[in-house]
Amino acid sequence: MQATASDKEGSAASLGDMPAEEFRRYGHQLVDWVADFLGNLDTTPVFPAVSPGELRGQLPLAPPLTGETMSTILADVDRLVMPAMAHWNHPRSFAYFNSSGSGPGILGELLSAAFNVNSMLWQSCPAATELEQVTLDWVRQMVGLPAEFWGVIYDGGSSSTMHALAAAREQIVEADIREFGLAGRPELPRLRLYTSEHGHSSIDKAAATLGLGLQSVRRVAVDETYRLKPHALLEAIREDRRAGFWPFCVVATVGTTSCTSVDPLPDVADICARERLWLHVDAAHGGAAAILPEQAALFAGWEQADSIVINPHKWMFVPLDLSVLFTRRRDVLRRAFNLTPEYLKTAQEGSVENYMDYGIPLGRRFRALKLWFVLRYFGVNGLADRIREHLRLAQQFAQQVDAHPAFERLAPVPLSTVCFRAHPPGFDDEADLNELNSALLQAMNRTGQVFLSHTKLNERFVLRLVISQIRTQETQVQEVWQLAQAALRSLLANDVTGSGC
Amino acid sequence: MQATASDKEGSAASLGDMPAEEFRRYGHQLVDWVADFLGNLDTTPVFPAVSPGELRGQLPLAPPLTGETMSTILADVDRLVMPAMAHWNHPRSFAYFNSSGSGPGILGELLSAAFNVNSMLWQSCPAATELEQVTLDWVRQMVGLPAEFWGVIYDGGSSSTMHALAAAREQIVEADIREFGLAGRPELPRLRLYTSEHGHSSIDKAAATLGLGLQSVRRVAVDETYRLKPHALLEAIREDRRAGFWPFCVVATVGTTSCTSVDPLPDVADICARERLWLHVDAAHGGAAAILPEQAALFAGWEQADSIVINPHKWMFVPLDLSVLFTRRRDVLRRAFNLTPEYLKTAQEGSVENYMDYGIPLGRRFRALKLWFVLRYFGVNGLADRIREHLRLAQQFAQQVDAHPAFERLAPVPLSTVCFRAHPPGFDDEADLNELNSALLQAMNRTGQVFLSHTKLNERFVLRLVISQIRTQETQVQEVWQLAQAALRSLLANDVTGSGC
Repeated sequence: MQATASDKEGSAASLGDMPAEEFRRYGHQLVDWVADFLGNLDTTPVFPAVSPGELRGQLPLAPPLTGETMSTILADVDRLVMPAMAHWNHPRSFAYFNSSGSGPGILGELLSAAFNVNSMLWQSCPAATELEQVTLDWVRQMVGLPAEFWGVIYDGGSSSTMHALAAAREQIVEADIREFGLAGRPELPRLRLYTSEHGHSSIDKAAATLGLGLQSVRRVAVDETYRLKPHALLEAIREDRRAGFWPFCVVATVGTTSCTSVDPLPDVADICARERLWLHVDAAHGGAAAILPEQAALFAGWEQADSIVINPHKWMFVPLDLSVLFTRRRDVLRRAFNLTPEYLKTAQEGSVENYMDYGIPLGRRFRALKLWFVLRYFGVNGLADRIREHLRLAQQFAQQVDAHPAFERLAPVPLSTVCFRAHPPGFDDEADLNELNSALLQAMNRTGQVFLSHTKLNERFVLRLVISQIRTQETQVQEVWQLAQAALRSLLANDVTGSGC
Repeated sequence: MQATASDKEGSAASLGDMPAEEFRRYGHQLVDWVADFLGNLDTTPVFPAVSPGELRGQLPLAPPLTGETMSTILADVDRLVMPAMAHWNHPRSFAYFNSSGSGPGILGELLSAAFNVNSMLWQSCPAATELEQVTLDWVRQMVGLPAEFWGVIYDGGSSSTMHALAAAREQIVEADIREFGLAGRPELPRLRLYTSEHGHSSIDKAAATLGLGLQSVRRVAVDETYRLKPHALLEAIREDRRAGFWPFCVVATVGTTSCTSVDPLPDVADICARERLWLHVDAAHGGAAAILPEQAALFAGWEQADSIVINPHKWMFVPLDLSVLFTRRRDVLRRAFNLTPEYLKTAQEGSVENYMDYGIPLGRRFRALKLWFVLRYFGVNGLADRIREHLRLAQQFAQQVDAHPAFERLAPVPLSTVCFRAHPPGFDDEADLNELNSALLQAMNRTGQVFLSHTKLNERFVLRLVISQIRTQETQVQEVWQLAQAALRSLLANDVTGSGC
């Protein structure tokens, strides 16, 4: 680092990195910018009025030949990037499953980028490996999993699930799929895995990727509250066995993406134990609620799982990306992925954790640092208080929906997501209702005041209000409720169902 | 965001995030810390004197119940984390393939964490999607690839290669592996893919993950400079066809991990065209050198590839993680991974880029921002100048090794990695030499002054000096050379080969 170099702007003038003093100057400027940004989010539109291609059209087609000043670049953030931003860190961000970049998490990321180490091996950065071990065991304790669960960080829930299903597949020892592949043993029956109709799309992606094929995923029926029916699961497994398939895995969900339904884990775990199937629990979003002792019932049975995914980057206020896969079968996961070429062999092998042994990624950044910052800054109680408040706000909103003659709720609210729609008196055609609610969602989002997304439940178009942003408080949730009513009145006044919106 | 909340330390006191003014205060403190850290790296040990478990042993076994102040947490970075850090951002970091977190890249990460958006869909953050489109096309132009190459960001080179091989597999249209899996068509011949003995371990990991099995990877012999032998490749393909296998893919490498050898791309590309095989080029590390017009010969033929991986987080001074997969067969990649559940459907589908369509990851953070910062701050010429200097320093070091009677070079230096070992006069037993060089590496690293790693070439233990850190200058490379000579003298004086080091 050229501490003594001139910090002339546009560092192409000399070799090496941006001079430390220039970093200091722009770092301070950017911290002020971020503090103002975070402080003013509530008065910023959450979703931009922007059309596809607008930002692209303003950027040069070719890269700059000579370096530009940091001032120019930061000015372009305001001028070009900001008008095309959807603000996930916004207190009125209720779409998809949210992610909160909390203050301590952002500071942790800054430090992590400055360190810029690779935690593939213990030796490649002892601190990164050991902090991952310690913080993941903290998370395990926080969510009440027994000590035999061991964790590893991947980028996201989809990756965690793919690695879990690879371990489930590896467990079929007699096939030695790692060595011979799925086509290597023509006598091997075709594998089947099970999840509910509401299981996440990452399960299908994993099945396709792992060479099992989309057809290896059998979707099991759900009850009227969108929970997997254990009896239907058992029937499916038996039917498949009779038909010559090899059932090997079940994915149960605590907090499905559409409506946060919670599969009946004790029953599913029993079936898996009896039928000798790997049980993977997708608690990517919902897992955070296990921090609350009073929510223990939602998670009863998950301690019998072989693997569980929880994303601290969803509802534990850690910035993207940080997903944790916990497993009681670390040896099986390791067997699926462990492969050490000469240039990665170290003297400590066997006596230390080398996280690269458990997955595809080799370039593993220092994600545990931001997790450590967030867990310590808020503390277990601080995180619990925030999640508890989100649950309260969701119940409050649900009650308001239930009490209103022109709105209805379409699913229970076990966590902090409310699935609702407008259903004004006199509207009874489902196609009309879908059109009305699609128009309602667009009208609400178009104001820039809120950002919600949708799903369909039994073919009904549903608005999803996901309350999991750390900055969201009662005020903002109530603003959504006011806006929904106002937008509906306006649509009905303009008879939007005929407008083709 | 509670802009008006008290910024009482330890924010568990009130709900919501860290107050903006507290973020501002600690942000400034941390920026100063990072600026000092970066400015003082040259006088910091690059590798710690730490034993496994030392950091772990100093951390509490259980998470804190109540929140702690940011001051306490930051103090623990100095007190606990720093003594266990291996510094990849250090000017004397020469191990593995390096990654440089340059100043503008670190600032980009800070901003990206503050935005904390998910770029899975255009609609989930238009700015993140469009900046990814623009910056990747800039990189494409910089490395001289034709306009039909399109890019997507994954976390690392191993993920990029896995996605590329999944696309190669998907290309076998008649098998419809996505739908039916690899065991779904018993009549389908077993698939084979090819890479040299020096191809990266991620190829094996991908083959195991994709259900092809490690045995589907056929390693082709290399010549005396560790480059894949085209004739041997052709022989292997023909032999496999005769034996009933289905050859479908070749992975060629520009810059193998052990010694940065460059496979003969024109010949390999010809074979792939004739035999109708998917050509994936692993240029994860080496690809950055394509920015230099004078290095065009190294890359001749790669424009015929179906897919190419280049990691800006390796030698383009972007902090971990950011890998780019370029492909001319975007449709095939999309077919392998595209799967849109209802809750991710948007009105713009078909008219915008939804990057989630091209892979496993759904939680995609805003990585393009740091790439944009780095490309603009240094400019194409600034990046080229730095890479060119690394190439010069490697040649200089190689010449010094060649001229020294007690050292020898074990591979050509097409890029900026020098594979060398001590070979003092009179030492002719290869086992002794391996022991000596292993001890030499340990002695050098133990000083804390440098961080190198090793490989084996033809069973010979080799020290790898990888010159790709943005902060590395001639001074530091020459320090390695002085240290290597001094450490060897010391080892020989102590007759280390008998010591069992």
